[in-house]
Amino acid sequence: MSTTSHTTPGSALGIDIGGTRLRAAVVAADGTILERNSRPTPAAEASAVLERLGELIADHPGLPVGVGIAGLVDPDGTVRYGPNIGIRDLPLAAELSASSGAEVSVANDASVAALAEQRVGAARGLADVVLVTVGTGVGGGVVSNGSLLLGASGFAGEIGHLIVEEGGRRCPCGNRGCIEAYASGTAIGLMARERLVDQGIDTVLRDHEAPSGVDVSAAAADGDRLAVSVLEEAGGWLGVALASLVNVLDPAIVLLGGGAAQSIGPYALPPARRAMAERLVGSAWRQPPPLEVAVLGDDAGVVGAALLAGDRAAAPAPEASEGTDRAAP
Amino acid sequence: MSTTSHTTPGSALGIDIGGTRLRAAVVAADGTILERNSRPTPAAEASAVLERLGELIADHPGLPVGVGIAGLVDPDGTVRYGPNIGIRDLPLAAELSASSGAEVSVANDASVAALAEQRVGAARGLADVVLVTVGTGVGGGVVSNGSLLLGASGFAGEIGHLIVEEGGRRCPCGNRGCIEAYASGTAIGLMARERLVDQGIDTVLRDHEAPSGVDVSAAAADGDRLAVSVLEEAGGWLGVALASLVNVLDPAIVLLGGGAAQSIGPYALPPARRAMAERLVGSAWRQPPPLEVAVLGDDAGVVGAALLAGDRAAAPAPEASEGTDRAAP
Repeated sequence: MSTTSHTTPGSALGIDIGGTRLRAAVVAADGTILERNSRPTPAAEASAVLERLGELIADHPGLPVGVGIAGLVDPDGTVRYGPNIGIRDLPLAAELSASSGAEVSVANDASVAALAEQRVGAARGLADVVLVTVGTGVGGGVVSNGSLLLGASGFAGEIGHLIVEEGGRRCPCGNRGCIEAYASGTAIGLMARERLVDQGIDTVLRDHEAPSGVDVSAAAADGDRLAVSVLEEAGGWLGVALASLVNVLDPAIVLLGGGAAQSIGPYALPPARRAMAERLVGSAWRQPPPLEVAVLGDDAGVVGAALLAGDRAAAPAPEASEGTDRAAP
Repeated sequence: MSTTSHTTPGSALGIDIGGTRLRAAVVAADGTILERNSRPTPAAEASAVLERLGELIADHPGLPVGVGIAGLVDPDGTVRYGPNIGIRDLPLAAELSASSGAEVSVANDASVAALAEQRVGAARGLADVVLVTVGTGVGGGVVSNGSLLLGASGFAGEIGHLIVEEGGRRCPCGNRGCIEAYASGTAIGLMARERLVDQGIDTVLRDHEAPSGVDVSAAAADGDRLAVSVLEEAGGWLGVALASLVNVLDPAIVLLGGGAAQSIGPYALPPARRAMAERLVGSAWRQPPPLEVAVLGDDAGVVGAALLAGDRAAAPAPEASEGTDRAAP
């Protein structure tokens, strides 16, 4: 990335700290990417990531900065838990602001991705949007009445841990029955492996020692029936979770994003749509919201982080947490 | 109710159309009830309810009017489905406005109850609130960042149809596994009856031909162990649903309201709190929100309906539905 400072009004620097890649982009207020940069996330050491973030921000003086990161992020930008780079209780926004002098906002990566799809992506023009991301895990974000739904502690949007079957499949979070245990890339690989126990099934997945979600998607694309059936099952479960979500949030559209969206979409979305529609309250008196694949792909994180930073730079004062403030109205 | 027109600035007429009672109150902007009226809901005939509504509104000229009603209500106040008085696709707000000349808002009853608890009840001063109502069924409402979460079609907040166990207990909505099938008054009665099959259990519930949820609560208050155990089981399931809700919405508080809240609360809330806390994402890095009984009781509906009407009367223009508006931002 060059050291040119972009002075397009309303542009911002968006950074997406992924488990494998650290992406950055200068983004205009309309979502256009003016400049981009991507490199592997420095392994293991959080300090190396922080150093790299400092360099990126220094390269773009004068721009507000937004950072998206997996995990639980407070409204003030403290990362309570950031598994990808192994940080806990780190006041990331405050530290980056202090070291760079820039205005830095930090939020959950899937939440900012939802904001991006709502503003400039597949849900443009709609005020109530749910994004479900499927990759290694399942995550998501919610835009309600045009604003990112952050919740009292900034932890809203943990869609992967909607429980669809109490006591059901074991989830990496330690509980059972979360949708992540039925529809993540990891779960799709596990479900395929379980089916291989039946030696009578003919499938190319036997060529893999332990097929992954990516292997299952590739096999489905080649017409493998077992693989297709596993993706359909995952889609059906996704529809159950989406019915719960739509009953509570009533979005105008539901988007499937994340690394696996394009590959599983053709197989998982039709059963997901059916399962969701059947389970909506008052299905006789309403249309289910459309369920479509998101369009911004890997750019959703950087674009959303930049849009959030731009919003906050334009607002008179940053939103404070009201979680424990019980003053009379 | 007298025919005196209240001119307290910001006051409004709130009406709650319940299945058994039609409640009305003149409510000040701070939630104080200035005048109230309650009578049985005219049975069977929607036209009798509409006539009574017209009289109530005519008795209070000059006041904005808010109406809460069970069912699915569009943002423009059309009741798509109102089971209590058997109406479908009735533009209730528009009809009442036309006949009375008043500014009339109509919304879901549990949603306006959530607004009331957030503004002037148990969640006063908190911006992110979930209300779960338990009575004959299970319902609820969500306040997010200080505003009622209505969704794209006005149908948000149908908390009773969060699925906790796909394929599980049959719900009156026609699906299986909704929390309403595990924690409503109806479900509590059914669960108790199922346990009576075991003749070895000593319980006062055998004195009832078909114990209802109210019978179970009364027996629990008398120390009946079977009744207590059924309420604890219902509470545990409620906690599963609340974990899903908190993972998605991250409220500062969760309130239990509705007709059964006071009677089931002492038995159902402790297991609900435990089940919820165990299932939250990142439970090691966060506190679960408090789960408490709501405080406005039967007044929540009229107060919330009046507050909504007051808000809309004070706003420059009513919010329009954006559900199908896909214009560029």
